[in-house]
Amino acid sequence: MDKVKMGIIGFGCRSYGMTSILLGFDDVEIVAICDKYEDRVENGKKLTQEKKGNIPFGTTDYKELIDSGLCDAVYIATDWEMHSPIACYAMEKGVGVAMEVGGAYTVEECWNLVDTYEKTKTPFMFMENCCYNRDELLATAIARQGLFGKVVHLSGAYAHDLRQEVTCGKENRHYRLRNYLTRNCENYPTHELGPMAKVININRGNRMLYMVSIASGSFGMEQYVENKGEDLVNKDLIGVDFAQGDVITTLIKCANGETMSLRLDTSLPRSYNREFCIRGTKGMYEQISNSVYFDGQPEYWSSVEYIDKYKDTAEKYKSLLPNEWKIITKEALEAGHGGMDFVELRDFVDRFKAGKEMLCDVYDAASWMVITALSEKSIKENGSSQQIPDFTRGKWQQREPVDVLTFGSLEE
Amino acid sequence: MDKVKMGIIGFGCRSYGMTSILLGFDDVEIVAICDKYEDRVENGKKLTQEKKGNIPFGTTDYKELIDSGLCDAVYIATDWEMHSPIACYAMEKGVGVAMEVGGAYTVEECWNLVDTYEKTKTPFMFMENCCYNRDELLATAIARQGLFGKVVHLSGAYAHDLRQEVTCGKENRHYRLRNYLTRNCENYPTHELGPMAKVININRGNRMLYMVSIASGSFGMEQYVENKGEDLVNKDLIGVDFAQGDVITTLIKCANGETMSLRLDTSLPRSYNREFCIRGTKGMYEQISNSVYFDGQPEYWSSVEYIDKYKDTAEKYKSLLPNEWKIITKEALEAGHGGMDFVELRDFVDRFKAGKEMLCDVYDAASWMVITALSEKSIKENGSSQQIPDFTRGKWQQREPVDVLTFGSLEE
Repeated sequence: MDKVKMGIIGFGCRSYGMTSILLGFDDVEIVAICDKYEDRVENGKKLTQEKKGNIPFGTTDYKELIDSGLCDAVYIATDWEMHSPIACYAMEKGVGVAMEVGGAYTVEECWNLVDTYEKTKTPFMFMENCCYNRDELLATAIARQGLFGKVVHLSGAYAHDLRQEVTCGKENRHYRLRNYLTRNCENYPTHELGPMAKVININRGNRMLYMVSIASGSFGMEQYVENKGEDLVNKDLIGVDFAQGDVITTLIKCANGETMSLRLDTSLPRSYNREFCIRGTKGMYEQISNSVYFDGQPEYWSSVEYIDKYKDTAEKYKSLLPNEWKIITKEALEAGHGGMDFVELRDFVDRFKAGKEMLCDVYDAASWMVITALSEKSIKENGSSQQIPDFTRGKWQQREPVDVLTFGSLEE
Repeated sequence: MDKVKMGIIGFGCRSYGMTSILLGFDDVEIVAICDKYEDRVENGKKLTQEKKGNIPFGTTDYKELIDSGLCDAVYIATDWEMHSPIACYAMEKGVGVAMEVGGAYTVEECWNLVDTYEKTKTPFMFMENCCYNRDELLATAIARQGLFGKVVHLSGAYAHDLRQEVTCGKENRHYRLRNYLTRNCENYPTHELGPMAKVININRGNRMLYMVSIASGSFGMEQYVENKGEDLVNKDLIGVDFAQGDVITTLIKCANGETMSLRLDTSLPRSYNREFCIRGTKGMYEQISNSVYFDGQPEYWSSVEYIDKYKDTAEKYKSLLPNEWKIITKEALEAGHGGMDFVELRDFVDRFKAGKEMLCDVYDAASWMVITALSEKSIKENGSSQQIPDFTRGKWQQREPVDVLTFGSLEE
């Protein structure tokens, strides 16, 4: 396959950025655009025409897009609720899927993804861009050198102040709003869980056994809305109760003895951080302090020494990064989230063309997304422990580890 | 009361440091020393004689010390197992208690402390020195100014690599060793929980409702012992299984909607940190990055800006610190844990002499220590949710908040 003919389903902000990157690829054509809002379909058509000259087919019905026969693959970036149904529909029709991240609403939704993939074998990639990010890959590369020893504990967060994004969207179109109004759960686990799961080979020699989640009360959004008052774009929100707790902490225990800790942290003021952290018997990587620590270093030291040590280590091991990160252009770095969107899409297109398995696959999608559904139940039951289904149905014991690190070579 | 006649029960490393500080106080006499090891009793007598001239009464039997009638109060720093029984015995005999920190073995142990205190009204202080530390007090002072808004989530850790301390003690005297060999729990919750509980007024208008703990596997100690091999002081430990997980994470939900997260992190290589963190609707304090963040600041910024902002804020609000921190001497700063041991002991002695209630009281002790016993059960049951007893028996609803911040004034 020389060129991939792609359809875009869902054309909000996220899609705008990702489609812009895809439009820069010589081996991709954007042939169809779908969104439930007409104006967005027009935006997508316009963007495509400006960048590539062609006017893609436009529709508000995702089934029409998939059934059109125009697309080899679709990129799905709709509201969270529709990700899985659309992905399953596309897989059933033999149209490849690049599905954006989000959490699951039910355990069944995750099984549907797995069952549909196993039945159809249609290519499916879960678009967890943080698995492709430079920092996370570099930390993983250092872990693979054995420098952290046996990895014992990992932690991370989606620490991103979304108060404005959730409450100030025009016409209440943002799918996050209804989720924040009505649900209380770890609604966005994969940005930290994905890279963590990769480090300890979840679904490939390891698996997640059980988890708990506890939610703080919901104060941040309501105070934000109250303080904005008449300046609020969406005045209907004044005085409304939000269901979503401000801080949701989730703990996960794994078959090989590791624990993982996640924190959803999106409605209190703070600076952005994913707080990716790897702890092992020989050392640690800590994103929040931009540092590494190895056994035998002095136990008390300053943050400046931390950062210098990481700089030295990063310099030493950056040769282990995939080639895409070595040849990355200024444009790619600026295109989306510091370059990771570019390298992620490049990997999807390369693998799709080569007929290779995706590095974030349907088992990753199901096991990472299910945390959302389970967290909702755990929180409702005051932190009850929830078993995590084995979506590989036992195959995790035989499946060989495959690193996202290897994505440049396509040789794994 | 002009002078406090004190007995020391337990004379290991911790006691040596604390007794040295007490010996520097003009209004304290060390009149008795007890330890189950004779050589330590002799050490205590020698230290006292060197510093103050008098030779205290020495015994290996804590009951003999308490029954001697020599002591107005005792400082208890034995193994964790004996803290509460000795404290209860002393309270029954009307001898005041300064009890070192540690976790509880059973829920009943915590009720015994409360019931004995309520029956005897003998002065009792829980010696959580981190409640007196400058950083935690300054962050609390900033919170009290309303700069963080409604406090929603707090987190902290006892992140202290204890591999050498636990495994290399001569003659296996360290009580931590047997605990690490046989128990798996949040064995030391109070260094982070104490200051956090104070910020949200636990037992004074708020209370902890339920908690969960999840433990990683136990890898750090065993690998440490294996790597030391023949260099190990205590060769009996080679090949022995440790029960204690390397990283224990505990989540607590509170009556006023707050959540707290604790991490016991003592058997993997790392630098020391308590990671004290306060999150509110208007801002945050984060010890790990030495920073504050307030609503409206740019969301993406560097760690250097973080630190500068905290320096500015600390400068602005340092006048709110208790007087003891303003007049602290170089000797006190060097005496133990950067000055906090000195100010904590000063507060104990002042309050004891004045007959004032202690700022870390028996309800604090019981509710903080019980986390250990409950965590052991939660971990055993794969993260089951545990109800936290209300040791105030409903009085938390009426009890007025009292800040450790006020300890200089004795006016509260």
